[in-house]
Amino acid sequence: MNPRLFSFVGGPRGAWSIVAQSAPSGDPLPAVERLEVHAGLAPLARDAAWRLCGVTSHDRYVERAEKARLVAVQQGLGRPEATCAALIPIRKTATWWALAQDERRTIVEAQSQHIAIGLRYLPAIARRLHHSRDLAEAEAFDFLTWFEFAPDEVPAFDRLLVELRATPEWRYVEREVELRLVRAG
Amino acid sequence: MNPRLFSFVGGPRGAWSIVAQSAPSGDPLPAVERLEVHAGLAPLARDAAWRLCGVTSHDRYVERAEKARLVAVQQGLGRPEATCAALIPIRKTATWWALAQDERRTIVEAQSQHIAIGLRYLPAIARRLHHSRDLAEAEAFDFLTWFEFAPDEVPAFDRLLVELRATPEWRYVEREVELRLVRAG
Repeated sequence: MNPRLFSFVGGPRGAWSIVAQSAPSGDPLPAVERLEVHAGLAPLARDAAWRLCGVTSHDRYVERAEKARLVAVQQGLGRPEATCAALIPIRKTATWWALAQDERRTIVEAQSQHIAIGLRYLPAIARRLHHSRDLAEAEAFDFLTWFEFAPDEVPAFDRLLVELRATPEWRYVEREVELRLVRAG
Repeated sequence: MNPRLFSFVGGPRGAWSIVAQSAPSGDPLPAVERLEVHAGLAPLARDAAWRLCGVTSHDRYVERAEKARLVAVQQGLGRPEATCAALIPIRKTATWWALAQDERRTIVEAQSQHIAIGLRYLPAIARRLHHSRDLAEAEAFDFLTWFEFAPDEVPAFDRLLVELRATPEWRYVEREVELRLVRAG
């Protein structure tokens, strides 16, 4: 198994309680009560409603100077105070994927400041990006981003999403689901 | 199944006869007589020695002007005269994958002219690149490149490999296997 593979399983069990779901673009996911995050390929339990998989991978757009700033301030997952989380699966359009690398980089950063916006919310909001598009199975989403933060940071996280969704990059998002979660008691 | 997934199965059967194998870096593959190229995930037959999988994907380094030149001249696979082929699985080092995007692009093109070298051998040599690194299974290689060309183009293909292997980019290749094939009669 690829050691960078993670699975997100929605169903009646899991360490995270889903407190809200919205679908800014396209179809929502079947509603469930809980989410479990697994390292590796989780077995799809009979009572689970869905399983999303993705692998962490190398940087696709981040340049060296940006990476240095990110690495200097970002925090890991699993901080005790980070009892809030979000899972945001996204699929981009065929037009996006047909663009050349320099065109995608221009949209991501020169036009949208995706990396710079994210940096402003560090270290409060920890994040792990998973790529799903190049798995052997056909996946419903291209990316799964998992965020963890303390309850006090919920307003900041809300602003981060508003900022990102207002960017030119988001014109290429054809499906986006937002799950908000709290650590189950 | 991901419609961009392809499998390469080495064993006693297949449409391509393996005429030579070499391993410029690292271990070779178990020697086999034939290769079959499958769209999708091929079943691993009991008598097969190995199966390599990868997905075609979006451009990771190619910029718009380069893409326009590539698209204008490149040919597809399956040309009747292209009775020779090569499969070149490659794995790059952990150091490579830890580089930022601009550092990898600089090595690929500014230092190594990987895209420009490839362009000089079009349209004679058709090529399809498959990505294996971000599959759910742990794969032995990061990339599988499949080439097809006419017998008259074998010397040109040999030169292409010499040129690429002399580049700074190849210092980051830690395993490389080269299989040379002809269409089975």
